[in-house]
Amino acid sequence: MDHKDSVSIRVFSLNCWGVRYLSKHCSQRYAMIGDMLLQEEHDVVLLQEVWSEKDYLFLRKKLASSHVHAHYFKSGVIGSGLAIFSKHRIQDTLLYRYSLNGYPYMAHHGDWFGGKAVGLAILNIGTLTANFYLTHLHAEYCRERDAYLPHRVVQAWELQQFIRHTSAGADVVVLGGDLNMHPQDLGNRLLTSYTQLRDAYAETDNFDGCEDGLTLILENPFISQKVIAPFEKGIRIDYILFKGSCKADIQCVSMHTTKGSIPGQAFPYSDHEALTAEFTLAPSEAGGDFRSSNRVCALGDVARLVDILTEARTEVKVGVHCAERMRYTAARMAAMGLALLLLELAIAAVPWLTLGAEQAFPLNTFYLLVALCLAILLCTSLLYVFYTMELKSLQGTEDQMRLSVGGLQEKLRALPRAQPTEGVKPGNMFCAEE
Amino acid sequence: MDHKDSVSIRVFSLNCWGVRYLSKHCSQRYAMIGDMLLQEEHDVVLLQEVWSEKDYLFLRKKLASSHVHAHYFKSGVIGSGLAIFSKHRIQDTLLYRYSLNGYPYMAHHGDWFGGKAVGLAILNIGTLTANFYLTHLHAEYCRERDAYLPHRVVQAWELQQFIRHTSAGADVVVLGGDLNMHPQDLGNRLLTSYTQLRDAYAETDNFDGCEDGLTLILENPFISQKVIAPFEKGIRIDYILFKGSCKADIQCVSMHTTKGSIPGQAFPYSDHEALTAEFTLAPSEAGGDFRSSNRVCALGDVARLVDILTEARTEVKVGVHCAERMRYTAARMAAMGLALLLLELAIAAVPWLTLGAEQAFPLNTFYLLVALCLAILLCTSLLYVFYTMELKSLQGTEDQMRLSVGGLQEKLRALPRAQPTEGVKPGNMFCAEE
Repeated sequence: MDHKDSVSIRVFSLNCWGVRYLSKHCSQRYAMIGDMLLQEEHDVVLLQEVWSEKDYLFLRKKLASSHVHAHYFKSGVIGSGLAIFSKHRIQDTLLYRYSLNGYPYMAHHGDWFGGKAVGLAILNIGTLTANFYLTHLHAEYCRERDAYLPHRVVQAWELQQFIRHTSAGADVVVLGGDLNMHPQDLGNRLLTSYTQLRDAYAETDNFDGCEDGLTLILENPFISQKVIAPFEKGIRIDYILFKGSCKADIQCVSMHTTKGSIPGQAFPYSDHEALTAEFTLAPSEAGGDFRSSNRVCALGDVARLVDILTEARTEVKVGVHCAERMRYTAARMAAMGLALLLLELAIAAVPWLTLGAEQAFPLNTFYLLVALCLAILLCTSLLYVFYTMELKSLQGTEDQMRLSVGGLQEKLRALPRAQPTEGVKPGNMFCAEE
Repeated sequence: MDHKDSVSIRVFSLNCWGVRYLSKHCSQRYAMIGDMLLQEEHDVVLLQEVWSEKDYLFLRKKLASSHVHAHYFKSGVIGSGLAIFSKHRIQDTLLYRYSLNGYPYMAHHGDWFGGKAVGLAILNIGTLTANFYLTHLHAEYCRERDAYLPHRVVQAWELQQFIRHTSAGADVVVLGGDLNMHPQDLGNRLLTSYTQLRDAYAETDNFDGCEDGLTLILENPFISQKVIAPFEKGIRIDYILFKGSCKADIQCVSMHTTKGSIPGQAFPYSDHEALTAEFTLAPSEAGGDFRSSNRVCALGDVARLVDILTEARTEVKVGVHCAERMRYTAARMAAMGLALLLLELAIAAVPWLTLGAEQAFPLNTFYLLVALCLAILLCTSLLYVFYTMELKSLQGTEDQMRLSVGGLQEKLRALPRAQPTEGVKPGNMFCAEE
């Protein structure tokens, strides 16, 4: 691509691990990140886990000359952690909060308080409109028994929906962030199949970084052996994804990641590796209708999408089942609390009604039990409300997935039978509808 | 417009007032609504306040022959209340939950539990792609001292953002719902100026319904005198808005509303009046780039937008101030609760430390006070978390509005000075930036 109007841009993405007072060397690392960004002058910088607005403002000040435009996406209790710095004017922004994001009582995991979301910033680069998406999905704390998998699948579903529905007017689309999903994980397949976003690591011939593009590696001194142990060398969960349109071509010229240490520095920027991708953008010579590129699908692609959707629906259904069970438990606990309260009141009322009879119930125990019952009632009521909301979100996603499967099956029936199905078992294509 | 490919569609919108056990004649009214919809066969039916999924399923079954396609948007604790029935296949759906929607402890208002949102359903009508949006904003309980105004302004802001960002691929856009805003209210101006949506009532020459298009009227037996009293005859808060694109023209041929009673029925369908609009859709002969229609603005339009945004920012800042005050109060209460708890423990500890001294603190009072302190601590902590989230959303919106004002001012500077400003004071155009 050597179009005369072509533009070259460099995009940077990093999960900053910016939990004040808890993350190691937090302020020193922010100073290092600021220095590096000021020097490197990437066109667009996508940061995650900038949990404190003070740290964002520190970077904003530091990068005032190199990255004139910036936006911090506020959400949840401690912020979404998402920040974008840009050399190009940010025309517009939009934030979409994921409907599910862990549980508030899992405070040690902390995801719920972060109000995880996807941020969109619309930039004009040359003559092109570029949609930059920035996100951070719910963490995976235990791969074998991942209680958050349904939540992450819902987040991946909402992410692909949000990108698809908001990018019709964009000439190029770039998504950067910590997806907390391995390359072949269900959510990742859902995201890339639906949006047709391409992985910068897989698309470039010029990669310099960790083996297999890993972004969480044992060589990083902030990573504990325990986290990486099940995965041999490390995992790849941070990505820069991209796509063009019929109006513009985009190609990933090169990509590199840090490798666990920074030459001349005592420690790396973060516990995650930093990603930098260089793209070439050029107005497309073909032209035509952008939307059509999303619509024309081969039979094999559609069938594969149906398979992925079926798998995702199964996972969401597991989530529905769990939420129903938890809600039922909360309701049962509330009922027990109420029954205990009524029983106590009844026992206490007996001597009061039969005047003169001695109060058999020690008053201290009585007060303690009443307080306990009220505490149980309050907590279980809050949990009941929370699980009901979780259930509604899961069921809503399942409904949307069913609708999508229906549409895809309609498409499958309409597509000419002659097209090759590329190894997809025909029997699987129609197994998703209930 | 008598294009050979033109299509005529009828759109229906109604706030169903479907609170089971609380709304009057709820099930009878749903039966009436179902019968009418089955008979009328509107192309698209947009319903709000269908709070119970059972009622949705009742309508779904009833309309199985007339409206084959339907979707219920699930959200919040009791659902978003939004349902769409369509004769045309629903290709895709998306739900955007507003970040602010009242307070959970205002249970008698109930809005928080509804998880207010905007639903999008994408339909193919003939050769055209039509985006149907369906929403219900936070109610206004007292116009003079409207504590929810900042929340509703944020909702209107998010609504216009959502419509703008998701409709780039649409040939026509229709929004129906109960906006809980009068025609000239700030949120309404924000919505229509940004999206360029046109009001079906104002656009048609053929209107049959209540005077001034009112949708909440005194003649409706479900409406109490108290609600309408300050507004003479009633208020208009339900709308059908629409716009075309460079690819398609849309015109509102006629519109009608119910008038408080239904001939031959004992009572109306709801406490709101039902809206029906008939549109003619036709592929545009001009063609061209759809997005450009949103971008080319006259100097006067841009300046007016800056004025509206400034007003909206002021309202959001009022909200920020209130949320900060409430959060401060919650924090102070929590501190007092904690101090009281520590004081109590200290008093109780004195005789325990000076062994043998008599316990001065009656044990019953001690337990009661400890329980009280713990209850205060729990409640104020929850409130603190809630207000922090409210604050984050308000501040985030304010940031986005400031960014938008900046962009508009840039545009103003770039636009030729010669264009008339149409009565907008130039002094106002630049007063929004801080």
